[in-house]
Amino acid sequence: MEERTEISSLGEFGLIDHLTRNNETRNSSTLLSVGDDAAIIDHFGRQTVISTDMLVEGIHFDLQYTPLKHLGYKSVVVNISDIYAMNATPTQILLSIAISNKFSVEALNEFYEGVYYACEKYQVDLVGGDTTSSQKGFVISITAVGEVAPNSYVKRSTANVNDLICVSGDLGGAFLGLTLLEREKKIFTETGAQPDLENRAYIVGRLLKPEARKDVIEYFAAHDILPTSMIDISDGLSSDLLHLCKQSDVGCVIYEDKLPLNEESKEFAYTLELDPTACALSGGEDYELLFTVAQGDYEKIIANNGLSIVGYITEPEAGKHIITRGGNEYQLVAQGWNHIK
Amino acid sequence: MEERTEISSLGEFGLIDHLTRNNETRNSSTLLSVGDDAAIIDHFGRQTVISTDMLVEGIHFDLQYTPLKHLGYKSVVVNISDIYAMNATPTQILLSIAISNKFSVEALNEFYEGVYYACEKYQVDLVGGDTTSSQKGFVISITAVGEVAPNSYVKRSTANVNDLICVSGDLGGAFLGLTLLEREKKIFTETGAQPDLENRAYIVGRLLKPEARKDVIEYFAAHDILPTSMIDISDGLSSDLLHLCKQSDVGCVIYEDKLPLNEESKEFAYTLELDPTACALSGGEDYELLFTVAQGDYEKIIANNGLSIVGYITEPEAGKHIITRGGNEYQLVAQGWNHIK
Repeated sequence: MEERTEISSLGEFGLIDHLTRNNETRNSSTLLSVGDDAAIIDHFGRQTVISTDMLVEGIHFDLQYTPLKHLGYKSVVVNISDIYAMNATPTQILLSIAISNKFSVEALNEFYEGVYYACEKYQVDLVGGDTTSSQKGFVISITAVGEVAPNSYVKRSTANVNDLICVSGDLGGAFLGLTLLEREKKIFTETGAQPDLENRAYIVGRLLKPEARKDVIEYFAAHDILPTSMIDISDGLSSDLLHLCKQSDVGCVIYEDKLPLNEESKEFAYTLELDPTACALSGGEDYELLFTVAQGDYEKIIANNGLSIVGYITEPEAGKHIITRGGNEYQLVAQGWNHIK
Repeated sequence: MEERTEISSLGEFGLIDHLTRNNETRNSSTLLSVGDDAAIIDHFGRQTVISTDMLVEGIHFDLQYTPLKHLGYKSVVVNISDIYAMNATPTQILLSIAISNKFSVEALNEFYEGVYYACEKYQVDLVGGDTTSSQKGFVISITAVGEVAPNSYVKRSTANVNDLICVSGDLGGAFLGLTLLEREKKIFTETGAQPDLENRAYIVGRLLKPEARKDVIEYFAAHDILPTSMIDISDGLSSDLLHLCKQSDVGCVIYEDKLPLNEESKEFAYTLELDPTACALSGGEDYELLFTVAQGDYEKIIANNGLSIVGYITEPEAGKHIITRGGNEYQLVAQGWNHIK
């Protein structure tokens, strides 16, 4: 029989002690960590970057098909992805959770296992947080702090006309993973049939265990690339590119045949009679980086197989367009994920 | 008829634009604020302090008697209180909310009015956050960032034997305010009778609109006082003093007749046949500062009418005790608020 320890048996402070017992400090800038009113971070000579995200059960994740360990990992990743999207290096996180009494200590352990695994992988320190009850469901709030050399941070609002539009990795996978898991959940609910995830490891992984593009930021640093603007793709390429264009007051053209798609994603899209391009444009949660560079950086970008040039920035009057394989031009529209319904 | 705008009519990004339209930047260290993946804070030559809190409807607040404007104000105050408790000055906050569709834009406006009012009063900048749906109720997560001159921060773990134990303001008021509002809510539910809050403005205010003790930190700076340890009183004096002693590995003695009580609090406690001392020891949410100073600072502390010396730090073997008015000695026990039930 599975062990179940009631959270109430530990009490709030016992729970905090328990959850942070293996917490390690990795950054010398972490002067004071969990256990006081606040954490102390030393950032002499660097600029501090800070971002926060909230994940709500039933809105952002479904525990019927989301292992808690993956959820802990993903909670960290989606937040530090925002720090990388500033061309900065995440250094610390704070994690708050609200939990109903349906969760056992063992369940929370699993969640924190994922959190700590992500902290180790991305070399960030968990330095604080809050732990409380919820009336219903699981709510996670993460704040990430990062550092960047003075004035090396990259905003959304500074793309220039004629800049190249680039994306890392491939797009649409997380959306297809979600579509698959929702389908299998429905089948399981209706018929009791076990989920069929064979040959679908890639898209399921894209949804449940995304990675933040630390390697891309490191590539920029190693090759002296300073993007002119950057954003992480959480709502879908269209939606996030429209944000970037709006904040930079520019237009854009992207090319359907340049959009990076994974083979498994494409193949699964076809089995669902979905257009892989639509999935790439509108599917959220890929956590890839969308950025612009000056044309002079062209060679440096194409030298990296993991980066794709998908279009270029235009005058604002030119609008925001996609040119299809057939040569037709359509207006780009936001159909990204929208967590406010 | 009251206006009601559905949040869905704005969309997530429209909602964020709407909620941050009057957001001002007050600190020169705020290099980049709301509207990008992350905020940028410049902290050259200062140390960064960061803390986070989560407030959950039905656990931390009851909207039946909590005006949303007060709730917004309090959400900021409880979080920056943690920054002051480090002897630091809060400079920025990030605010995330999860809301169900029962909330209208007008309701959120009220909440944010309180948030911005607190930002103005305490001179902090709102620099980021997240806005999402909840399945049920209102969840608020706030992260505060502050700065402190190098190594001037004050921890919980550094109290020394023979130090004086001090508290700011008075204690137990917020607990009595809560008791009153819960009683009036029950009466209203059962009989429909309107709440009777006459002559109870002080204790109701202590609960619904607490203040953070910025003035105490400023007094320390102006009079060259560096407390040896400090914590804010959110769980009750007993519970928070036990934390401080545990983390400092010391014991303590406090005196019942030294505990600062407000007249209205005392009087209301008597009408309820509650012991005002018990309210002061175990009532949470007063957000006063509990700190220790070396004996040499005695004159500087008593010169401030808003500060009380309530006892002193002892060797750890001496235990943690309270001496009553009658001269009896009891062990101090934590009966603070516990949000994990």
